[in-house]
Amino acid sequence: DFEKALEEVKPAFGAATDSLKSYCMHGIVNCGETFDHLQQTLRTLVNQVQVSEKTPLLTCLLEGPSGSGKSALAASVALESDFPFIKVISSENMVGFSEQAKSSQITKVFEDAYRSPLSVIILDDIERLLEYVSIGPRFSNIVLQTLLVLVKKMPKDGKKLLVIGTTSQGDVLESMGLSEVFNVSLHVPALRVEEIVRVVRSLEVFGLRDIPEAVEALTSTASKLVPIKKLLLWIELAKQGLAEDQKIPIPRWKQVLSDLS
Amino acid sequence: DFEKALEEVKPAFGAATDSLKSYCMHGIVNCGETFDHLQQTLRTLVNQVQVSEKTPLLTCLLEGPSGSGKSALAASVALESDFPFIKVISSENMVGFSEQAKSSQITKVFEDAYRSPLSVIILDDIERLLEYVSIGPRFSNIVLQTLLVLVKKMPKDGKKLLVIGTTSQGDVLESMGLSEVFNVSLHVPALRVEEIVRVVRSLEVFGLRDIPEAVEALTSTASKLVPIKKLLLWIELAKQGLAEDQKIPIPRWKQVLSDLS
Amino acid sequence: DFEKALEEVKPAFGAATDSLKSYCMHGIVNCGETFDHLQQTLRTLVNQVQVSEKTPLLTCLLEGPSGSGKSALAASVALESDFPFIKVISSENMVGFSEQAKSSQITKVFEDAYRSPLSVIILDDIERLLEYVSIGPRFSNIVLQTLLVLVKKMPKDGKKLLVIGTTSQGDVLESMGLSEVFNVSLHVPALRVEEIVRVVRSLEVFGLRDIPEAVEALTSTASKLVPIKKLLLWIELAKQGLAEDQKIPIPRWKQVLSDLS
Amino acid sequence: DFEKALEEVKPAFGAATDSLKSYCMHGIVNCGETFDHLQQTLRTLVNQVQVSEKTPLLTCLLEGPSGSGKSALAASVALESDFPFIKVISSENMVGFSEQAKSSQITKVFEDAYRSPLSVIILDDIERLLEYVSIGPRFSNIVLQTLLVLVKKMPKDGKKLLVIGTTSQGDVLESMGLSEVFNVSLHVPALRVEEIVRVVRSLEVFGLRDIPEAVEALTSTASKLVPIKKLLLWIELAKQGLAEDQKIPIPRWKQVLSDLS
Amino acid sequence: DFEKALEEVKPAFGAATDSLKSYCMHGIVNCGETFDHLQQTLRTLVNQVQVSEKTPLLTCLLEGPSGSGKSALAASVALESDFPFIKVISSENMVGFSEQAKSSQITKVFEDAYRSPLSVIILDDIERLLEYVSIGPRFSNIVLQTLLVLVKKMPKDGKKLLVIGTTSQGDVLESMGLSEVFNVSLHVPALRVEEIVRVVRSLEVFGLRDIPEAVEALTSTASKLVPIKKLLLWIELAKQGLAEDQKIPIPRWKQVLSDLS
Amino acid sequence: DFEKALEEVKPAFGAATDSLKSYCMHGIVNCGETFDHLQQTLRTLVNQVQVSEKTPLLTCLLEGPSGSGKSALAASVALESDFPFIKVISSENMVGFSEQAKSSQITKVFEDAYRSPLSVIILDDIERLLEYVSIGPRFSNIVLQTLLVLVKKMPKDGKKLLVIGTTSQGDVLESMGLSEVFNVSLHVPALRVEEIVRVVRSLEVFGLRDIPEAVEALTSTASKLVPIKKLLLWIELAKQGLAEDQKIPIPRWKQVLSDLS
Ligand SMILES: Nc1ncnc2c1ncn2[C@@H]1O[C@H](COP(=O)(O)OP(=O)(O)OP(=O)(O)O)[C@@H](O)[C@H]1O
Ligand SMILES: Nc1ncnc2c1ncn2[C@@H]1O[C@H](COP(=O)(O)OP(=O)(O)OP(=O)(O)O)[C@@H](O)[C@H]1O
Ligand SMILES: Nc1ncnc2c1ncn2[C@@H]1O[C@H](COP(=O)(O)OP(=O)(O)OP(=O)(O)O)[C@@H](O)[C@H]1O
Ligand SMILES: Nc1ncnc2c1ncn2[C@@H]1O[C@H](COP(=O)(O)OP(=O)(O)OP(=O)(O)O)[C@@H](O)[C@H]1O
Ligand SMILES: Nc1ncnc2c1ncn2[C@@H]1O[C@H](COP(=O)(O)OP(=O)(O)OP(=O)(O)O)[C@@H](O)[C@H]1O
Ligand SMILES: Nc1ncnc2c1ncn2[C@@H]1O[C@H](COP(=O)(O)OP(=O)(O)OP(=O)(O)O)[C@@H](O)[C@H]1O
Ligand SMILES: [Mg+2]
Ligand SMILES: [Mg+2]
Ligand SMILES: [Mg+2]
Ligand SMILES: [Mg+2]
Ligand SMILES: [Mg+2]
Ligand SMILES: [Mg+2]
Repeated sequence: DFEKALEEVKPAFGAATDSLKSYCMHGIVNCGETFDHLQQTLRTLVNQVQVSEKTPLLTCLLEGPSGSGKSALAASVALESDFPFIKVISSENMVGFSEQAKSSQITKVFEDAYRSPLSVIILDDIERLLEYVSIGPRFSNIVLQTLLVLVKKMPKDGKKLLVIGTTSQGDVLESMGLSEVFNVSLHVPALRVEEIVRVVRSLEVFGLRDIPEAVEALTSTASKLVPIKKLLLWIELAKQGLAEDQKIPIPRWKQVLSDLS
Repeated sequence: DFEKALEEVKPAFGAATDSLKSYCMHGIVNCGETFDHLQQTLRTLVNQVQVSEKTPLLTCLLEGPSGSGKSALAASVALESDFPFIKVISSENMVGFSEQAKSSQITKVFEDAYRSPLSVIILDDIERLLEYVSIGPRFSNIVLQTLLVLVKKMPKDGKKLLVIGTTSQGDVLESMGLSEVFNVSLHVPALRVEEIVRVVRSLEVFGLRDIPEAVEALTSTASKLVPIKKLLLWIELAKQGLAEDQKIPIPRWKQVLSDLS
Repeated sequence: DFEKALEEVKPAFGAATDSLKSYCMHGIVNCGETFDHLQQTLRTLVNQVQVSEKTPLLTCLLEGPSGSGKSALAASVALESDFPFIKVISSENMVGFSEQAKSSQITKVFEDAYRSPLSVIILDDIERLLEYVSIGPRFSNIVLQTLLVLVKKMPKDGKKLLVIGTTSQGDVLESMGLSEVFNVSLHVPALRVEEIVRVVRSLEVFGLRDIPEAVEALTSTASKLVPIKKLLLWIELAKQGLAEDQKIPIPRWKQVLSDLS
Repeated sequence: DFEKALEEVKPAFGAATDSLKSYCMHGIVNCGETFDHLQQTLRTLVNQVQVSEKTPLLTCLLEGPSGSGKSALAASVALESDFPFIKVISSENMVGFSEQAKSSQITKVFEDAYRSPLSVIILDDIERLLEYVSIGPRFSNIVLQTLLVLVKKMPKDGKKLLVIGTTSQGDVLESMGLSEVFNVSLHVPALRVEEIVRVVRSLEVFGLRDIPEAVEALTSTASKLVPIKKLLLWIELAKQGLAEDQKIPIPRWKQVLSDLS
Repeated sequence: DFEKALEEVKPAFGAATDSLKSYCMHGIVNCGETFDHLQQTLRTLVNQVQVSEKTPLLTCLLEGPSGSGKSALAASVALESDFPFIKVISSENMVGFSEQAKSSQITKVFEDAYRSPLSVIILDDIERLLEYVSIGPRFSNIVLQTLLVLVKKMPKDGKKLLVIGTTSQGDVLESMGLSEVFNVSLHVPALRVEEIVRVVRSLEVFGLRDIPEAVEALTSTASKLVPIKKLLLWIELAKQGLAEDQKIPIPRWKQVLSDLS
Repeated sequence: DFEKALEEVKPAFGAATDSLKSYCMHGIVNCGETFDHLQQTLRTLVNQVQVSEKTPLLTCLLEGPSGSGKSALAASVALESDFPFIKVISSENMVGFSEQAKSSQITKVFEDAYRSPLSVIILDDIERLLEYVSIGPRFSNIVLQTLLVLVKKMPKDGKKLLVIGTTSQGDVLESMGLSEVFNVSLHVPALRVEEIVRVVRSLEVFGLRDIPEAVEALTSTASKLVPIKKLLLWIELAKQGLAEDQKIPIPRWKQVLSDLS
């Protein structure tokens, strides 16, 4: 049974790395201090799990608005940890599963982790795993109870585990008592004006002089706070039909913002 | 398995085109700038999916009152895209299916699309797919969660996908968090007076001099805003018994409006 | 399969006509202009479906208080249409069916209709098909969703279909979004004083001079508006023990009203 | 199949009569005009069903407080009708049945009735058949919908049916729309002072002079209105240990009322 | 089948007596008039069932705060009745049963009783049989409906039955309509100061002079009204480590009350 | 069957002891009088069960904020009791079990205990066993009813049982009526300032002079009351990278508190 278990663990590992990379599809752009500090804190946790005997389990929740970069952040830290067992639990791989099947799948990943000396599990988009919808509200209590127990359950026999969860419904998880079972809770914000400037500058998509007007156009159409994922998408749409190294003209940028945002 | 998959994809394609055409049964009448602009925006998205490497997935929601032309708009743009995989997901083909069966059917269409290089999926009348009713409210959370995940899930390996959804319950989808997962949200309005005039003029169903009175009769019986689908139906009913090229007399028009609207 | 389908359609037809006739058990008494106009409007719809190519589907909802004559009206118009496929969908033939079974049964009737060139389907007592009860409220969402889709679904290949629904819970169907999917909505009222007079006169059950007092007794006991079905029942009860051609004495009429209404 | 049906009907008949008799265990004491009038009205309905061709179905609801004599009234009228098919539908014979089983059982009785020329069905304690409880409220919608349809469904082919329902929750049935489907609704009240006097007098359980004090003691302990069933029980308890023809002493009567009511 | 039934009844009987005795584990201490009167009333009911032909069924509900002695009271009266069939229906013997299984089990006991000439059934802790919880509230409607019917159902053929129910949720049973179906409802109170004094005196656990202070300590820590069951437990805890005939010192008594109540 | 039962009991015992020890992973630090008193009270109960014939069952609920040391307290007292049967019922061993399976598992443990002369059962984290979530609220009524019965059920034949429950949702258990069925209810608080000082002093992790500032930093970042479990975790995190006997520098301590709490 142990040999079979090992077999099951190995191939999962390779696939996980691929899938982790796809979470950072647009790379990790330098967004400034806030993001650096978040990354640093996560690295501290990785380290702590690895070295301390008295903390066989550490759990951290990344919470912030939709598209703020939570999944990419979790994935990038997990990738650089080089732990022998890394796995993402995502609803994308469980479409159409029954609540019970989701619960079993999640449990199976944790049990695999308990057999590896050093593991990272990413619980991505926890509100989706919970099948949460605010009308009602409705959600899978079976999956919720599974998470409430597993996020607190210590690995035995010196095995070690880091759990990173992501959610854009921090207050909902709070009211379910799920935030509370995580050791640490970190807020991943959308970009503020200074950070937007920094990002568009490093991407070199606007003429240098156009940047203030481009950012002004953006924050006045949408809102003061812009998630990095949306910013990158709008830039992509605005670049349609332009040559590789051509800058985005301001009128075109405004057109895209008014039509598509 | 791959060969079988290809087989499954092909025949589906032929049927889809037929069904798409039936969505535009009354043709696409020129309704003025608003509609032209909507069509243009959708074409931009078709183009973006086709050319850009960084946007393997684009998703757009058409939202507006009942009969405003959402399905016809989506179908006409999909038809002219000439993408190799085009499919409509409609509750008309899933009458009596269980929630699970609907969810599987929807998932299957997306999985077929992930195997085609370039695809369009139309999610027609999303509130019907969700079995939504405002009393309660009730709806299928299984189908909702399936959509919440699939509308965000990236095709792998360079495959590309455009998803167009239609709904007459924009606010409901908003409160379910389903509007938010679409990249773009477009409003398809009912016709205003100027647009009604333009439509009846181009259809040549009234005597030229009767048009003001006909439109006045219409907007005072029903409301200032008239969905194109209803307008076309009432014209059809008013034409009953008239010769092919005969104009609709105003009294008859008023009779139809008072009896049947 | 097609032959078998034809076989299934034929016998159903004969039975349907019988059952339609039983809906008009007390005949159609002349109740005045309102009822004539309703009948006329329904006949227009029958005609439209028959002749116009562009309206393969017309749908009409008859809504009004309990016993106002909705089912009899729908049945009499359907009978005189002489369409080759006429069918009543009534909960009387589905007692004890599960929600799924009801939904399948309804779907089957529509599918049979799609195979016939010209069809009428009567959805009788829609609130009963929906298993509606105002406490809760509760109803079968499976049946509701089936109706929401089928009442909008176009027959293919030039087949034509008229759907007539009846309900005494117009506002409930409104709030379910079911009224909206019907092309036309008609109100079938209870009888007003003038109409009651006309009915009892043509039935010749009271002495001519007694009519005013009889009607006065009726509207003061019950209410100003009396459904035709109740009126006919009370007359029947008052005639108990009288000779065939004997008129109902006023005291007996008052006794019946006070004891049994 | 028809022969088998006949077989099923016959034995049921014998048992029903026994069970009907047990409903009148304490006999029918003369309670005064109100009760005589109720009995008379029910007899009129029995007669109407028997003689008129145009009323193949009559339905009557007896509604009133717990223990007021509804079941005994229904049973006694049914017994004296001498109809060839008489059946009581009571939850006492369906303890532990599922909702579906109850619904089938009820439907079966009605179908048996449709095969008999002249039938009475008693729906006893309808709120119990519905498994009604005011907390929630909860009830079996399956059974409710079955009743809503069957109480309105006409027997075919000249068969005739009288349905008598009893309930102590008239307002609940009202709000379920179930009262409305009955042709006639009759109120069976608890006993007022004059009626109590009449009952205890005819039972000869108190000394003649003691009656006023006995009745006074009763209505002041309990309430002004006393259901016949409770009155008969308390008399029974008070007679414990007395000789057959001994009158109940007033102190003993008061003791019983204060200890046991 | 009858022989088999008899077999089933007999062994049940023996076990029941044992289980009845365990309900009175701490014996029946003399608690004063209130309790004597309750016992006397129950004995009257036992007698009535035994002798009167017209009351084949009597039903009595004992209602009062948790631990007030309801079960012990019911059990002691049942034991001394010497009826040939005595049975306790308790959730202790149905842990983990489904609602249906509980309902069947309860029904089975009643059916066994209908075959015995003279029976007592104790429905112990009815709120537990109903799986009641005030959040919601939730409860088993299946079990409730079973009780609502069985508590009213008369044994046939001269068989006789006394049903005693106990509950600490009198108001809940009231709102379920369950109190109402019992013929008699009796309140079993917690002990008042005089009764506490009487109990501790007869148990001889305190020095005679200490009694006032002991009772004062008790009623000031807990409340003016103390259930007999709790009183007996605290005395037991306070006696820990003392010799059999040693009195409880007041300081120890106070310690126990402050630590453990 | 009895032999098999014994076999099942024995191995369970060994495992339980291991699992009990893991509950006290960080040992039991001296936290001051409050905790000593709690421990003392629990020992009294252990003793009482062991010696008194009249208390075959004692039940105690430990209630207090998350991480206050309830499980460790229960486990340590159970371990030192040296009872032949000790078992923890924890949701950690029932992840993914259905409600029924959980209920059976719990029942099985109690039944095993009823066969052992002297037993302790720990019901750990009762709100998790109940699958409680405050949204709704939702919980397993099946498990709740099982606990409501088992916590009150006396072992037979002189067998003895101590039940210790733990929960961080005391008020919820109160409103479910579950607190009430325990004989004793004890509050396990988070640490107050004096107690925090005592703990950090005995752990020797700060320089003696730094203690006031360290405690001040802690209570101002988090709250006046700190659960022992969190305190121990933060100390562990702050010690990362320090030599075994090195004290935690205040700035580092503040950094950890601001980043990770
Ligand atoms: N500094 C950064 N941090 C995070 N993501 C970044 C950064 N720079 C660029 N990105 C890109 O931004 C995108 C962030 O999207 P991501 O899916 O991680 O957001 P999210 O918060 O998980 O969104 P959702 O709420 O929809 O799950 C990724 O494509 C990532 O490659
Ligand atoms: N410019 C136009 N845009 C859209 N539809 C048009 C236009 N001109 C004519 N039509 C016709 O109007 C009808 C629009 O109906 P369609 O079913 O698309 O509306 P819808 O908004 O999807 O309605 P529903 O809310 O009921 O789904 C179609 O029959 C179409 O052929
Ligand atoms: N002009 C008329 N229109 C309709 N019904 C008439 C007319 N004259 C006589 N009737 C008789 O009146 C009765 C009307 O009952 P019907 O069942 O159609 O009413 P309904 O509105 O469908 O009632 P319900 O709300 O109970 O379904 C029938 O028996 C019919 O024969
Ligand atoms: N005039 C009378 N009318 C009705 N019942 C009478 C009359 N005289 C005596 N009784 C007796 O009174 C009792 C009435 O009880 P019955 O069960 O009919 O009441 P109920 O209203 O059906 O009660 P429940 O609401 O509990 O069903 C019967 O035992 C019957 O024999
Ligand atoms: N006079 C008395 N009446 C009742 N019980 C007594 C009396 N004297 C002593 N007892 C003892 O008091 C205890 C009463 O507990 P019992 O279980 O009957 O209470 P209860 O009201 O049924 O409690 P619960 O609400 O928990 O079911 C028994 O152990 C019984 O032996
Ligand atoms: N005096 C003490 N009392 C209790 N626990 C202590 C004490 N000293 C140290 N500890 C340690 O503190 C931790 C307390 O955690 P424990 O799991 O018992 O808390 P809990 O209240 O059960 O938390 P939860 O609400 O999460 O179940 C254990 O690791 C234990 O070893
Ligand atoms: Mg994410
Ligand atoms: Mg549409
Ligand atoms: Mg009708
Ligand atoms: Mg009755
Ligand atoms: Mg009890
Ligand atoms: Mg704990």
